[in-house]
Amino acid sequence: MKVTVKVPATTANLGPGFDCLGLALPIYNEITVEETVMPGSGVEINIIEDSETYDILSIPKDENNIVYKAIELLYNFVGQTVSDIKITIKTNIPVTRGLGSSASVIVGGLMAANKLLGNPADEAVLLSIATEVEGHPDNVAPALFGGFCLSSFEDDGSVLCSKILWPEDWKLTVLIPDYELDTKIARSILPESITIKDAAYNIRKCSMLIDAVYRQDAELMKKCLSDKLHQPYRERLIKGFKELKELLANKDDVLGCVISGAGPTILVISKNDGFEKVENEVRQIFEDYNVNCDIRTFDIENEGTKVI
Amino acid sequence: MKVTVKVPATTANLGPGFDCLGLALPIYNEITVEETVMPGSGVEINIIEDSETYDILSIPKDENNIVYKAIELLYNFVGQTVSDIKITIKTNIPVTRGLGSSASVIVGGLMAANKLLGNPADEAVLLSIATEVEGHPDNVAPALFGGFCLSSFEDDGSVLCSKILWPEDWKLTVLIPDYELDTKIARSILPESITIKDAAYNIRKCSMLIDAVYRQDAELMKKCLSDKLHQPYRERLIKGFKELKELLANKDDVLGCVISGAGPTILVISKNDGFEKVENEVRQIFEDYNVNCDIRTFDIENEGTKVI
Repeated sequence: MKVTVKVPATTANLGPGFDCLGLALPIYNEITVEETVMPGSGVEINIIEDSETYDILSIPKDENNIVYKAIELLYNFVGQTVSDIKITIKTNIPVTRGLGSSASVIVGGLMAANKLLGNPADEAVLLSIATEVEGHPDNVAPALFGGFCLSSFEDDGSVLCSKILWPEDWKLTVLIPDYELDTKIARSILPESITIKDAAYNIRKCSMLIDAVYRQDAELMKKCLSDKLHQPYRERLIKGFKELKELLANKDDVLGCVISGAGPTILVISKNDGFEKVENEVRQIFEDYNVNCDIRTFDIENEGTKVI
Repeated sequence: MKVTVKVPATTANLGPGFDCLGLALPIYNEITVEETVMPGSGVEINIIEDSETYDILSIPKDENNIVYKAIELLYNFVGQTVSDIKITIKTNIPVTRGLGSSASVIVGGLMAANKLLGNPADEAVLLSIATEVEGHPDNVAPALFGGFCLSSFEDDGSVLCSKILWPEDWKLTVLIPDYELDTKIARSILPESITIKDAAYNIRKCSMLIDAVYRQDAELMKKCLSDKLHQPYRERLIKGFKELKELLANKDDVLGCVISGAGPTILVISKNDGFEKVENEVRQIFEDYNVNCDIRTFDIENEGTKVI
């Protein structure tokens, strides 16, 4: 028996929402989990690269694989031990670009294994296990549920998640550069502490961002995408980000730009064809840096992980 | 000509919403501003104590009065100079208790003076001037507009404010102790900086609080009232707060308790008669500390400042 699921890419943080905001994009990885026919054959992990653009050599193919770790936690949860399984990962989401590729394979592995086991774990358990493996819920929540998610990792290990309706005419453009940025490095340059003033800034901006999404108020949203917690430290690692922010600051129908996750991908949020109108100017910024940039505009992905 | 307005008390922060969340309570100050008949008579400030319980001796009665300062800024805004006016403040909101008494007189003075001048300033200007005098918008916004307000003081001096519908059956109980706590002292004990981890905690809690109010979800709200930014430092100044938190942690229909503004008043949020059912146990906590506590339960005040 085998189960295949498709899991969307995700973009986390959205500016002020450090470790709690994320949304899903219609780029998919496919994860297949199957019981192997031969007992004692152990764990086999295959990775099929679906895209020519991105290499996935950095993904370990043994028990250190994060998908395997997640599946192991699920089996433990139901009182079983993983023995002989084959995991096949067909990747289409760029890795180490800040598009939730690790969250997608964790969530995919969990969903597929859960289905193989007869669905013993509910969504709350899957979300909690995925968050434990990933370290934070901002990518795994939208990878699982799709859409725009606000999530919170609680002190007791549980994870709260609210999916909030994203306005239909708010488009998402990802600017994926041709260099990688290790999330560990992007995390290591953050300071241990920030001023209360900066913390209060992000508290009100992120809260008001939630309010702007509920109200579907683009003018308010424009004022909610700024951040003083992580972007001021990370933006020097992201070529062209400062110039892009300045360029987009007063463009009609462009709501703003933020670092996608820990970068280096940049997310631009615009209304209708707002991005198209500035695309040439945007391309010029990256050309000036000699950065090849894969630019793609999407509607939000609203379905999340699905068995196919 | 004279104008009298009534302005509600307010409670700010609501746990995680440091300097940005506040809501209005139906306890009112009345502020009258009138042009004096005799030119050259200068500024006259009268304070009438409407309540026997709280002294208001600490309010200055000359040009250093915050009401006067706010009115002066308004006159400057319209290109005039304040000369001869009489300000009468009839107080009913306890002072130095964390119930927005200063915000109420600032907002009241501004609204009355604006009306005297023929309403040259719109609400955005009044909110911005009031925030400048008060230092932060969390009390002035609900004092002006009533209801539950999320507000943000922007770098350019403007103030954003969203009024969000508060669930009808969420009652507000204030526990007003018989001792004062100077906001300056309560601010001075806060550290300059906090860890990124604690900042991220408050970002997600406050954002999820907004979500809980939109959803009118009491179970979610219970998980959103915790804070790691100011309460851990202030709670040692608030007698009984820790014991109250423990008592209320698992009571049906009690959503939680938070320090009102900078304290010492405590705000309890409950559903329907949730507070009534625990009132005796709550009283005991304060009796054990020999603190007289004025306990009052209200519906939210939704009208804000009104000319009467």
